[in-house]
This record gives sequence, C-alpha cells and structure tokens, in this order.
Amino acid sequence: MPLASTHPLAAGRTADAPLVRALRGERAPSGAVPVWFMRQAGRSLPEYRATRAGVRMLDACLDPALASEITLQPVRRHGVDAAIFFSDIVVPLALAGVDVDIVPGTGPVFAHPVRTADDVARLPRLAPEALAPVAEGVARTVAALAELGRGDTPLIGFAGAPFTLAAYLVQGGPSKDQLAARTLMHADPAAWDALLAWAADVTGAFLRAQVEAGASAAQLFDSWAGALSLADYTARVAPASARALAPIRDLEVPVIHFGTGTGELLAAMRDVGADAVGVDHRLPLDEADRRLGGRAVLQGNVDPALLFAPWPVLEAHVRDVLARGRTAPAHVLNLGHGVPPETDPDVLTRIVALAHEGA
Amino acid sequence: MPLASTHPLAAGRTADAPLVRALRGERAPSGAVPVWFMRQAGRSLPEYRATRAGVRMLDACLDPALASEITLQPVRRHGVDAAIFFSDIVVPLALAGVDVDIVPGTGPVFAHPVRTADDVARLPRLAPEALAPVAEGVARTVAALAELGRGDTPLIGFAGAPFTLAAYLVQGGPSKDQLAARTLMHADPAAWDALLAWAADVTGAFLRAQVEAGASAAQLFDSWAGALSLADYTARVAPASARALAPIRDLEVPVIHFGTGTGELLAAMRDVGADAVGVDHRLPLDEADRRLGGRAVLQGNVDPALLFAPWPVLEAHVRDVLARGRTAPAHVLNLGHGVPPETDPDVLTRIVALAHEGA
Repeated sequence: MPLASTHPLAAGRTADAPLVRALRGERAPSGAVPVWFMRQAGRSLPEYRATRAGVRMLDACLDPALASEITLQPVRRHGVDAAIFFSDIVVPLALAGVDVDIVPGTGPVFAHPVRTADDVARLPRLAPEALAPVAEGVARTVAALAELGRGDTPLIGFAGAPFTLAAYLVQGGPSKDQLAARTLMHADPAAWDALLAWAADVTGAFLRAQVEAGASAAQLFDSWAGALSLADYTARVAPASARALAPIRDLEVPVIHFGTGTGELLAAMRDVGADAVGVDHRLPLDEADRRLGGRAVLQGNVDPALLFAPWPVLEAHVRDVLARGRTAPAHVLNLGHGVPPETDPDVLTRIVALAHEGA
Repeated sequence: MPLASTHPLAAGRTADAPLVRALRGERAPSGAVPVWFMRQAGRSLPEYRATRAGVRMLDACLDPALASEITLQPVRRHGVDAAIFFSDIVVPLALAGVDVDIVPGTGPVFAHPVRTADDVARLPRLAPEALAPVAEGVARTVAALAELGRGDTPLIGFAGAPFTLAAYLVQGGPSKDQLAARTLMHADPAAWDALLAWAADVTGAFLRAQVEAGASAAQLFDSWAGALSLADYTARVAPASARALAPIRDLEVPVIHFGTGTGELLAAMRDVGADAVGVDHRLPLDEADRRLGGRAVLQGNVDPALLFAPWPVLEAHVRDVLARGRTAPAHVLNLGHGVPPETDPDVLTRIVALAHEGA
C-alpha cells in the first residue's frame, strides 16, 4: 500500500497536505478530495501565454525563474492542491545532449531517430551536473510556495516513462500508433532493452533531482503505454519503468503512474512501484478500482471533452467521478488527460471548489 | 449466430467461399483460415501507386474503372480470400454534397465543421442516384473477378460507422482524441443524435448500394470508437450503428464490425448486428473470444508493427494469432489495423500462404 512520505525535505512541510495524505491512502473526514490538473500550467492560462510569449518551450523549462513562475500560476489562480513542476518529458534527454526540439503544434522532434543497436550505443550519458537548472527551478518553486503562504502545498515532480521516451526517440517525433517503437521492441529485443534501460536511467535521474530539490511526490507519465498489449507491456516495458523509479525509492515520496487508454494495464502499472494510478475518461473509477482489487489510490478521471459542455452537464459528470472514486482507498481528482489549450480556466476553478466541497 | 448469405446476387457465387463460410461460423476441415488485409488495396503496392499517380483520392473512388482496378490489385498479387471495395468512408458524404476533400498525409478535411443543431439541420440529403458510380464500381469488380477465374471470391462492401463519420464532421478533420465530437455528444445530445442518425442513413445507403451491386459481405469501420467509454458507446453511438446496418439486413450478407482500441467494446459492437468483430493488436484473440462468450466470429489481429520485423519473428507471431483464433467459433485472419504504406507487399503474400497452410 502507499508509502508514507518521510523524506526529510518533504515530510515536515507537506506531510499533512490533502494530496500527500490521499496518496498514502487516507481520506479526509470531510469528504473533500484533493485536486490538480495535468497541464494546469499551460496554454489555458492567459498569464502563461504572456510569460511564454517569444520563449521557446525548452528554454522556458530550463530557465529556473521562468519554470518556477509558470509552475506557480495555477496554484495562485485555481487553489489546486498541488503544483506540478513545469517541464517536458524530453528535458532530461536534451540535457544529456540528445538533439531534440519541441516544435509548437507538433511536439518533440529529434534530429536523429534511434533505430538500431548502434544508435542506442551512441546515446550520450547524462552528466549529473547538467540537471542543475531543474534542481534550481524546483528549489525556487518550493521557496516561492512558502512566500505565498502555501508552504504546505506539495510540488509534484514530473518525468516521462521509458516507453514513451523510447516511442519518441525511435519514431523521431510524435506518432499515432508508436509503430516504429513497437517494431524495434520485437525486431531487436536486445537493442530495445538497452534503449529502455538508457531512458530509465536518464528519466530516473531527472526525477531524483526534482525530489532531492523538494518535490513531495512524483508522477511518471507513460502517455503512449495504451498502444501496447498487456503482454508486451509486462514483458518489454514494465521492468524499465520500475528501473526509472528505483532512483527515488529511498526518498520515499509517493508515486503516481499515468497513461491514457490503459484500462487493461492498470494493475501492471501499479506493480512497477506506484502508489496511485491515473485513469483516463474511458474507464469508470469504480471499475478501475475493481481491476486493481482496491490496492491503489486512483487519480482521474474527468473527461476533458466535458470542460466545453454547459456547467450543469460538467457538474453532474464531476459529481459522478467523485462518487465512483469513493470506492477506491483514496482519490485524487484530475482530468483523464491534460487540460486542452482552449479550456476556459474559470471552469477549472469551479471544479476545484466542487472537489473541496466534501461528500 | 452468423447469418447464412442468401442474397440472390451473392449466394450462388460466393456461398462456399472460405471467407463467407468463416463469417457464418464454419471452420474449414483442413484448418486453413481465410485472410485479407485492411488497406490491402493501397500504397504498399507499386501497382496502386502507379494507378493513383496524379489522381486525387476522391476522384479515384468515384471512377468505377479505377476503383475496380485498384480493388482487384491485391487479389491478383496476394491471392487473398476477399476483395474489399476501394473507397473511403467519406465518399457517401461527398456524394450527398458535403464539402470534403481527402488531403494526402492528413485525411478528410471538411470546409464547414458541424458544431450546432443548425449545422446538423443544414446537412444535405443523399440522393439515391448519386450512388451510381459506387454501384457501377462494385458491379465491374464482381464481373472482373469472374473474368479472372475468381468469381467465387467475395467482395466486401465498405462503410464508416456513424460515430467515426461524426468525429470527422464535428472536428472538421482528423483528431487525436475526438474531443470536439465527444463534447457535442454531451453538450447537446439532441443535436448529436440527429447528426448520428443522418450519418447512419447516409452510410447505410452507401453500404446497401454496394451489396445490391454484388458485395457478399460488409464491414463497418468505427475506427475511432476506441476513444469512447463503454457507457458513452452504448448510450450514444450503438443505436446509430444498428441504424446504419438496418438497410442491408434484408440482404442477409454477413457483417464485420471493426475498430481499434475497442477491447472494452467488443460485445457492444457485436450487439449492433455484427456476425464478426475485428480486434486490434492490443487484445489476444482468445481473450477477445472469452469477452464475447464465444458468440461472434473474430477477425484480426496481426500487429502491423511486426510486418517490419524479420520473417521468423513475424511468422511466430502469425502462428500465435492463428492458434489463439482457434478458440473462437471461426476466424478471419487480418491485421489489427490497416496495412502501413511502407509495408513490403511480399510479406503480406507470405502471411496469406501461412493462413492457407492449415493447422
């Protein structure tokens, strides 16, 4: 079951925070449910668009002052129960020296797709000191939360899972079906395993840097895991995801593991070492809890499509999500996927109020 | 259980064809399994690329001689057990007068996205005579199959399911998550139902024209249904899919119903009136059969990613698919999704030989 957060940097400060308690499997007596939103720091906020004007994505991620400011924006505006460090899953790859850019409207684009064992062998090592801007950004954010009088608000550290990183690296960019990555997985299992081990070590170091600098929890994003069969996930991906989490195990922060279209994979995703599992809009939380045998905290699963429906429709949906979430040991309210850029931010603020209302 | 094909146009000619027998739930004593490939008539074939050179997609679909020639190409080359009529799911929309183009590398793009009840009310009616080029293309293909000495090879009629058509219409083009369509479904259920009824009638008429002209089976493509929860699929989509199939019910050809990422929806997709259900690479066929309680023929589910692996890896995978398919009442071998454009066509020919080998 969920671990207590006893890391010295996080324990005192955020140990009683609703999010941290929920990730430990504790429910608030009031029935209030902690809430945050994936991509809450992003294009739905006018203040974000203003801060990012003329700044490239990777430059924003690697500027500690800017990353910290962007991370704080949704905390100030919505009163969410957690900040999540503003970054991108390819940041540690860029810091290792991989030639990658984040192209607006497209996503990460790599100069040299990784297709062979030789390509994998040539991947650069990540020097620990390269992570300094990330650590500084996290430390600044934690200090700024205290200045805001929100020192007890946890900051969630952020990293991509090895499969999703590998899917981008093999394809050389985003893909609908992760075809090239799934080919390599079967065509050259040794090269695949080496690539996933490399990605696990890079993303694990990125995650450790964030927790050491003050993050109170961590979320591993395996955005594309839903492209896999359970058999492929279990045999060819899960061991690397466990390896990515190994570097933070001794820091004892709770871990959330997220993907979309992963209804068939929930137990396997828990078993790599997660305390909470993210669920997208496709699967009701009570059914997710049944599949997990009650042995994981659930996060999710408001349908992002409903953010654009009239409030009574959305409100009824959020109440249904909260009701179904009560079957689980504990529940962190979130969307089933990231906040769409066109979202009216006021709608998110109303959802926060609803989650805090209690049962 | 699967219906016998007793339509006068199809019955005599193809009643004993391995595909038609399999769709009725019969297995060949030899253990041979019928096989065809989604997008078998397409960019993987050099003869297709030559035929299509300089011809726009919709023009090719609406030229009976061209559509027929393209439909026959994979039958000649691979010896597959079925032709599938070369078309596109938006063809009946274009014939109704909807302003749509198929943009290479993108997909269907609509001049006017359908977002409101008024937009739905303004959708044009499909005049039955507009379907003449489709009927002529099918009739030519059936005649040409006979000339090839393959008169007993069934032609599969082809249509998009109402949800997938609506997903394109509401978005105005392809989308990763069908967000706009899923919003309309909840924000304005009456407009949604009207849109799906319109799409069902258009696509149902398209399907009927193909069967009347000589198609011996039909496949309904709900490519994007995997974006839906089972609850949304059942309440807001399945009735329209049943309505799309109603126009061909009296023609008594067997129906295959296909989607990707639909492991949670298989029984609901059968229950709209399908004899066979398509399964993508994510779910093993024995597990799909278990979910269907043995009450559907299965089609699938070779992983398209494996087409690019060395032959021994692909061969072992195809043999595994065939072995798992033996748990179902009957099995039609296919890919879990369409043939990728970069596929070496010789690999497809080898898969046909493997399926015909018998157990």
